Order: sequence, then C-alpha cells, then structure tokens
Amino acid sequence: MNAAYYEGPKIMRVGACEYVPPGPGEVRLQVAYCGICGTDVHIFHGLMDRRVHAPQVIGHEASCEVAELGAGVEGVAVGDRVVVRPLQPGQPAPVDHGFTHIAENLKFIGIDTPGALQSFWTVPAHTLHRLPDAVSLEHGALVEPLAVACHDVRLSGLKPGEHVVVIGGGPIGLLIAMVARQKGGHVLVSEVNPQRLALAREFNLATVNPQEEDLLEAVGRFTDAAYADIVFEVSGTEAGVAAMTQLPRIRGRIVMVAIHSQPRPVDLFRFFWRELQLSGARTYEPEDFEEAIRLAAGGSLPLDRLITQISPLEEIQSVFESIDRSPTGMKHLVQCTRR
Amino acid sequence: MNAAYYEGPKIMRVGACEYVPPGPGEVRLQVAYCGICGTDVHIFHGLMDRRVHAPQVIGHEASCEVAELGAGVEGVAVGDRVVVRPLQPGQPAPVDHGFTHIAENLKFIGIDTPGALQSFWTVPAHTLHRLPDAVSLEHGALVEPLAVACHDVRLSGLKPGEHVVVIGGGPIGLLIAMVARQKGGHVLVSEVNPQRLALAREFNLATVNPQEEDLLEAVGRFTDAAYADIVFEVSGTEAGVAAMTQLPRIRGRIVMVAIHSQPRPVDLFRFFWRELQLSGARTYEPEDFEEAIRLAAGGSLPLDRLITQISPLEEIQSVFESIDRSPTGMKHLVQCTRR
Repeated sequence: MNAAYYEGPKIMRVGACEYVPPGPGEVRLQVAYCGICGTDVHIFHGLMDRRVHAPQVIGHEASCEVAELGAGVEGVAVGDRVVVRPLQPGQPAPVDHGFTHIAENLKFIGIDTPGALQSFWTVPAHTLHRLPDAVSLEHGALVEPLAVACHDVRLSGLKPGEHVVVIGGGPIGLLIAMVARQKGGHVLVSEVNPQRLALAREFNLATVNPQEEDLLEAVGRFTDAAYADIVFEVSGTEAGVAAMTQLPRIRGRIVMVAIHSQPRPVDLFRFFWRELQLSGARTYEPEDFEEAIRLAAGGSLPLDRLITQISPLEEIQSVFESIDRSPTGMKHLVQCTRR
Repeated sequence: MNAAYYEGPKIMRVGACEYVPPGPGEVRLQVAYCGICGTDVHIFHGLMDRRVHAPQVIGHEASCEVAELGAGVEGVAVGDRVVVRPLQPGQPAPVDHGFTHIAENLKFIGIDTPGALQSFWTVPAHTLHRLPDAVSLEHGALVEPLAVACHDVRLSGLKPGEHVVVIGGGPIGLLIAMVARQKGGHVLVSEVNPQRLALAREFNLATVNPQEEDLLEAVGRFTDAAYADIVFEVSGTEAGVAAMTQLPRIRGRIVMVAIHSQPRPVDLFRFFWRELQLSGARTYEPEDFEEAIRLAAGGSLPLDRLITQISPLEEIQSVFESIDRSPTGMKHLVQCTRR
C-alpha cells in the first residue's frame, strides 16, 4: 500500500498510500501499472512547481482494477479492468465552446490532482474505459499515450494512401507513426537519435536522419515529388518547426503535437503561398480512448517493444534517474501493486 | 490606345498599347478600369524585379468589355462586360494535389505575364466572369479584391453568429470584414491608423485601436468572454502575429491573409493548448469570383466609398506616387479607356 510522492526537484519519496474513500460518482481503483510520461519527467525536474504542489502523488498512464464504488456509480463493477482518461472538466467557460477535453478550467488528474503512482487511486467514474480481455494490464498502461496518438491522427484528417511525415521519433512520435500506418498512411519518421531510428526501423517504419541527409529531398523521394499530405511536429525543436512548413504539399496539413515553451520563428509566407493548415492537438476525447483500446486489443501494434522496463513502485527514484541518464528510452512502466 | 509600362524602380512610362491578336482560346478585351493592388505597389518599388521584367504592363484588377474573340472561344460574345480571374495554371505538378489556383507552376496574369493597365488586353477566355447589368464597370474593378475576401472568408468556415476579428483595416481587411458581416459574422476590426478606423466606423463596423486599448480585453468585451471564433491576420506585422494567437477561443481558427516576407515568432504553445487552427489563404477559386460578383450586384456593400480616386491611365506615375505619399487610402482606380 505504497505511493510515490513528488517532494521537490529531483526528489521522489515512497510513502504510505492514503485511503481515500470514493465519494458519490467516484471509484477507488487498485492500480496495476503506471507509465512515466514526459510530463512526469518535467514535474520531476521541478519545471511544473506552479501546478504541482509537493508532496503530491503524480502519474496518469495507468491500468487498474476497480476496488470500490462510491454512491450512485453505475455501469462498472468491482473487479473490472479499466484505464483512466485523466481529465476532470471544471466549471464551463464561454471560451471553451463545449470542448471539455481542453476546457479553460480543466483539471488534469495526476498533475493538478493526485495521480496513479500508488496502490489505490480514487477518481471520478466518468473517467473510466473498460479494458477487454485481449488487452493485458501491461499494455493497458500504454492506452493513454496511444489515445494521444489516436487524437493527433484523428485531428489530422488522415485518409488512406496519404503521405505522412512524423518529425520526432520518441514514444508519442512512434505511436503516431504506428496509428497513422494502421489508418492507411504511408509514414516516414524523421529522427536524429540512432537508437530511436533503429527502433523505428524495427517496426518497419521508413526513417530519415535529417542530420545525415537533406530532409526535403528525402520527403520528395519518399512521395514521388508529391510531398507530405500531413506533417506531425513532435520534436519540440526549432529545427522541427523550420522543417514542418517545408515538407507539406499545397494545402498540406501540419499537426502541432509538441510543447514549444517559447515562441518559434515560423515561415508564415509558406502558409500563405501553399495554403497550408496547422492544427494544435492536446489530450484526447472519449472516442480516442475507445480507438486506442481497440487498437491495443487488435494485437497488430508492437506494444511490448515500446516497454523499455518495468520497475516496482519502490524504485521510483531510480526510475526517474535512469530516464534522465538515458532519455532515448521508450516507455518505463511502474508496477504499483505487487501481483 | 495607351499602356502603362513598369520600367524599373519607381518609374512608370505611358507608351503605345501593342495589338496582341487573340490566339485560340483567347480573347482581346477593352479595359475599362483597373485597380491598383498592394502587389502593384511592391512592383513599382522594384521589390519584385525577379518576377517582373521591365518594361512590362502590370495590373490585374480590371473590368473590361470583350473586343475580339480568338478561335474556338465559346460562351462569350463581343461587347460582353467581364472581369478577369488572373490565374493561368501551368504544367500540373504532383505537389499541387489538384489545387490549380495556387499551383506550383501557376502564372499570375499581370505579374508573370502582361497586365491590365492598358487600353486592350489579351487573356485566356477561361479567366472571364461575366458582369451582370447591376454591377457598374467601376465596381467591376473591385471584384478581384472582393474575390480575395470571399476566398478568405470561405476558407475560414464562418458560420452565422460567429465572432470575427480582423487584424488590419486596409482595403483587403475591410473587404473581409464586410463579407464576413454579410455572412452573418459579428465583426471587430483592429487597426492603428485613424483614417482607416474612421472609414471602418463609417461602414458601421466595430473597431479597436490596439495602441490605445488592450486588444485582448476589447475582444473579451466584444464577445462576452467567448473570444474570437475566427481571426484574420491581414496586418502583415509582428504585432499582428503576436495578437492572432491570443484572441481565439478554444478550437478557434486563424486565417493567414497577409504576406509575411520573413519568419515571425509564433506562440506555438497556444496552438497546442487551445487546439487552434491556422489556414493560409491565397488568390481565389472560380466560386469566389462568382460570389464576389453576386455581392457586388446585391448592392449592400459600400463599394463607392472604397474608391479613393479614379485617374486616367496617362497619370499612372502620379497615381503610384500619390499612393506612396498617402498609403492609408483605399482603392485607386485607373481608367484605361476614355469613355
């Protein structure tokens, strides 16, 4: 019955998991596995101390079993295997225009409220999606990042046969590449890190290293000079932003997945000249979670190969430290309950 | 039978209009009026000498009468009153994806080929749109910039009742504002120049001067805190680009109308956070010309007030010089044939 508390920059502490009784409309979950997100790494580095108030349990990529139901909860039973869509819309605001998944007063569970890196976790029942038998609890912990990729690909409007370039081959970039391929896209991954390139090739994805060859020429060859229908910017780099406007065809679409914490120089003339489109994409909607679960259940995605390591909760400090030492790994899972 | 030739930076010369017999599929037009576009001013300043090879007749915002038909031209008769959609698609390229109005090998008539500032002008017949009786030849010369505005508004996906902010109240900005209002939008124009603000108010458009009041607050008040559904960036300024990402609601849309000749710092985090969309918009498609003609014929747009001055072709040098002296004017028309 342990919990991993963020205590301040670079300090995680393992302490007792508090019993939080499920209130009306809530459920208490026994957490099986929780993946570590790039956002968790940011929190660990102390970069989100304005939102995360130590000591706080963090984590939001969890697979769970329902342990206890609060009053009025229907449609879910103790023992159900579930994943959590960690979004708690707050008071609606006019600026929301009904988009609850990115609403002005949205609370992100595991960042703005206690997270999943603990044995038991109490959350609103409306956040749950049931896992089918075909999805293991290990793979279940990948559903949340997979739902991010499903959201990004859905917003891109990808049609079968279209050419897709993914700039940045980290966990989300590779998931986007795999989902886009699953939807009929011809996918090229641009990445500079040799290990990540090797992993992408292992997944039979076409790759290019823009530090070794001209990216625009590579995309020209890959597409028979038709250039990219869709570009996903997942690198978060200035070089990625410079490339994203050069690769699309006329009326091509760019999806901004990466978090750019500072303004970047953007070739706006190119938007005008080629009538390019750029869409930001953040979090997910319920249908993206359902799609991610369907894909995970289908068995065609190499989810096992995306799991770099599984560690017990008690080793949480060394998990974050090992991510810092080797930032090119894919998904680190934390086992939150001994099974 | 005169023509206005661009001879080099800041020099226009009035010379003889050459007789160009219409080839197969072409028509020879008698030009009535030709408006001066911002692009023509750029050419006059010598900024487009890589595309425009002096001496060249320029101009592309023309109203005309058909004077002579080339072989095989159908559906148009001598004496018809017409406007010209000055786009000549070249050899199709894979990157075009079928979008001929902004195709890779597009020639813009009046920039890449001889223009309308002459008594007679020979163009492909496929560029013609017939003017109904309700549209005067003076107003006909405004159809091309009005078609730009119709294209921009169409690409914005404006729905009746939506809130629209137009950043930049020059000729195209005001036309966009008027078309957006005609389509049911609630429109606010942001402009710093007092004369342009006064003209916008004369058209009963809501206005804000961002140098005198906080633009974000003004948009908040104008929209009851719902913020902009659509922002048109027509200013071409760094300040406009900084504002365009701050004003839209969640999932708001931005249309890039202005020509930014250098990369601009863009708040890409805002695109991610609010799932904003940006679309570039350039030139027009046939339906935009038809819509512009319908709007001009409808009589509800104050087109007369957009015409700053009408001058004979022989005064072309002083027309450009007066635009340079008073860059906040609206549309200068040139009468190309004495009537």
